[in-house]
Amino acid sequence: MTSIESVVRAAPAELDAMRHALEIARRGPAKGPNPRVGCVLLSAAGDVLGEGWHRGAGTPHAEVAALADAAGRGTSTRGATAVVTLEPCNHTGRTGPCSEALLAAGVARVVVSVPDPNPVAAGGAQRLRSAGVEVEVGALADEGRALLGAWLPSVERGRPFVTLKLATSLDGRVAAADGSSRWITSEVSRHHAHDLRAEVDAIVVGTGTALVDDPSLTARNAAGELQRQQPLRVVVGHRDLPPHARLHGPGGELVHVRTHDPARVLTELAAREVRHVLVEGGPTLAAAFLAAGLVDEVHAYVAPVLLGAGRPAMADLGVTTIGDAVRLTTRSVIPLGPDVLVVATPDRHIDPHSTTEEH
Amino acid sequence: MTSIESVVRAAPAELDAMRHALEIARRGPAKGPNPRVGCVLLSAAGDVLGEGWHRGAGTPHAEVAALADAAGRGTSTRGATAVVTLEPCNHTGRTGPCSEALLAAGVARVVVSVPDPNPVAAGGAQRLRSAGVEVEVGALADEGRALLGAWLPSVERGRPFVTLKLATSLDGRVAAADGSSRWITSEVSRHHAHDLRAEVDAIVVGTGTALVDDPSLTARNAAGELQRQQPLRVVVGHRDLPPHARLHGPGGELVHVRTHDPARVLTELAAREVRHVLVEGGPTLAAAFLAAGLVDEVHAYVAPVLLGAGRPAMADLGVTTIGDAVRLTTRSVIPLGPDVLVVATPDRHIDPHSTTEEH
Repeated sequence: MTSIESVVRAAPAELDAMRHALEIARRGPAKGPNPRVGCVLLSAAGDVLGEGWHRGAGTPHAEVAALADAAGRGTSTRGATAVVTLEPCNHTGRTGPCSEALLAAGVARVVVSVPDPNPVAAGGAQRLRSAGVEVEVGALADEGRALLGAWLPSVERGRPFVTLKLATSLDGRVAAADGSSRWITSEVSRHHAHDLRAEVDAIVVGTGTALVDDPSLTARNAAGELQRQQPLRVVVGHRDLPPHARLHGPGGELVHVRTHDPARVLTELAAREVRHVLVEGGPTLAAAFLAAGLVDEVHAYVAPVLLGAGRPAMADLGVTTIGDAVRLTTRSVIPLGPDVLVVATPDRHIDPHSTTEEH
Repeated sequence: MTSIESVVRAAPAELDAMRHALEIARRGPAKGPNPRVGCVLLSAAGDVLGEGWHRGAGTPHAEVAALADAAGRGTSTRGATAVVTLEPCNHTGRTGPCSEALLAAGVARVVVSVPDPNPVAAGGAQRLRSAGVEVEVGALADEGRALLGAWLPSVERGRPFVTLKLATSLDGRVAAADGSSRWITSEVSRHHAHDLRAEVDAIVVGTGTALVDDPSLTARNAAGELQRQQPLRVVVGHRDLPPHARLHGPGGELVHVRTHDPARVLTELAAREVRHVLVEGGPTLAAAFLAAGLVDEVHAYVAPVLLGAGRPAMADLGVTTIGDAVRLTTRSVIPLGPDVLVVATPDRHIDPHSTTEEH
C-alpha cells in the first residue's frame, strides 16, 4: 500500500489538479459509509474541463459529478485526463461503476492518489488499463490518505475504526469513590470531546456506564445545542436500560447490542455501514476492546486533578508484568486549557481480518 | 510581597545593570542553603565600577564581592549606586551584614529587585535608609523571583519547597500487578528526572519504595555516571533498610527519618538547610504529603502505556466525592519523547507557618 512518489509519473499541472481535487473533496461529508473523493478533468493542454466531488451516499461519485460538470460547460472530455483522489470504483452499488463512466467519456489518462482498498469496489485501475487508458497511482498519496480519515483503515481492516476515549485525573481515575465524576476534565476538553463525537458514526458505552452515569451521548455545540448530525448511540451488555434513561431522549438512533464481545459489536456496526466508532467507557468495555486488539487510537484527556481513590480508567487487561503492558505510540500531545490530550495508537499488530467473522 | 514595577524609580542604566546582575548571579550554585545573588556597582555617571556574585555558603555575599572587585580596579565607590538582585542582608551569619559593608564603602543609592523574605536577614533596606541611603525595591522583580527558584518560597514558607514526582502509565499506574515497573516512562523522561534530582537538595522516598524497588536515588548524567553534586537521600518510615540496600552505596548522604508525618520530615530537613525536596514515592508517601497540603509542585511524567491493574500512583487522599478532589493549576506541558510531563501546582492554600512547629 506504500506509495513511492518518485515513481509516480504526474505532470506539474496534474499535481496542481490533485491538490485542487483534495480541496474540493473536503466539501463532502467527513463521515458516513462513503469516502470523501474529489475529481478534476484536464485537457491535454492542462486546462480544467470540469470538476466534482462526492456529496455522500446515494449521490453521484466524484468522477461522474466532474463529467457532468464538463458536459454542463459544453466541453468534450475525449482524450482528457481525470485526476482523482481515490481509485475509480469498478462496481455497481447505489451508482454505476466510475471506470465505465470514464471510458464512455473517452478519458485517455487517469491520475489517482490512493488505491481503493475495498475488495468489492477495487479493480477500477485494472479495468481502465485493460481498455487502453494510462493510469498512474500514488500522486500525493499521504495527503490522499489523510483526506480519507477513518474510512481508509476501516475498509482496510474490514471493521469500523475504533477510537477509545479516556478522560482521567492525573492519577488515572475517572470518578471519585462515590461515583461522582462531574467534572474531572475542563470545559475546553469537554467541547473538544463533543467535536469528536460529531466526527464519528457511533458512540459506544457499556450498560454499566449507561446505568450509573445516565449519559445522553449526543454531540452538542458550545451553546449546548444538539449538532445537526448525531452519531448512533450504542449500548453494549445484557442489562436493560430504564424507560426514563436520557439515551431514549433526543439524539442519534439507540442500538442495544446484547453481548460482551467487542468483535461482535463491531460486526453489528459494520453491517450498519459504521466506519468510525468512539468507545467512551466504562473501564470494563475499554479493557475488553483493548484486550481484543480492537482499539486503533486512544484519545486520553488528562486533567490536573488528583483523586487517590475511585473508579480507575481501565479494568483488568490481563497484564501482570511490565513486559506485557499495552504500549502505544504517541501521535500528538495537545494542551486543552488546563488539561492535556494525548493521542496515541497501540503498537500491537492488529490482524485486519480477524474481526470480520462471526463469533 | 507583590511589586508594582511602575512605582520603582530606576534609571535605564540601573535596569541594564540589574539585567547584568541577574545574569552573573546565575554563575552561583542553583541549590544549597543560600540564594543566588548578583550585584553591580555604578558610578553617578552610570559607569560600572565593580561587580560580584555569591558563590555559595561560606563565601562573600554578592555586594561584598562587588566592592572587592571595585577596590581591585582601584576605583572609589563613594557616592556609588549598588544594583543588587536581593535586598542586602542585615545580619551577621557566616559573613558580616552587607548593609554595613555598603555604608562603609560610601554607597549613596541601592536598587533592589526582590526584598529579603528571611526574617533573620531582612531589614537591610531599612538600615540603609536610616543611614541616609536612597533605596528602591522591586526593579525587575519577576526576573528576580525567577532567579531565586525554590529558595524564595522555601524561605517564605519556613520549610523546604516540595516537588512531588509521579511517573505513571496513561491509566495512572506506577507498576504492574507483580510490582515490576522498569520501564514505564521512556529514556528521555528518565534523563529529565535525573536532571531534576541534580537540582534538588534532597530526595525522599518511603520505606516501602526503598524495600520493594531498592533504588539508589542518585543523580546520573546521560552516560550513567554520578553527577558531581548528589542530593541528600532521605527514607521516611519505621522499617529498617537491609545492609545490602543500594541506598548504602555511592551517592548523597543517607538519612532515615522514622516518622510518617510529612511535616516532621520537612522540619528535620529544614534543620539541615534543605531548600528543595523531591518526593519520589511511593503512593502512600505521596498521598501523605498531598493530604497534609505540603506539596508545592507536581511533576507528572505520563507514558503512553496502559496496564489495567497494578500499583496506583496515589494512595487514598481521603477524597470521596469529586468536589473534594485535589485540583491543580497546570504550569507547563512538556512533551518528552513519547511521554508528556505535566507540571502543576495544587490550588489549595497552604499556610506558610503551619509546618514550622514540631508535631
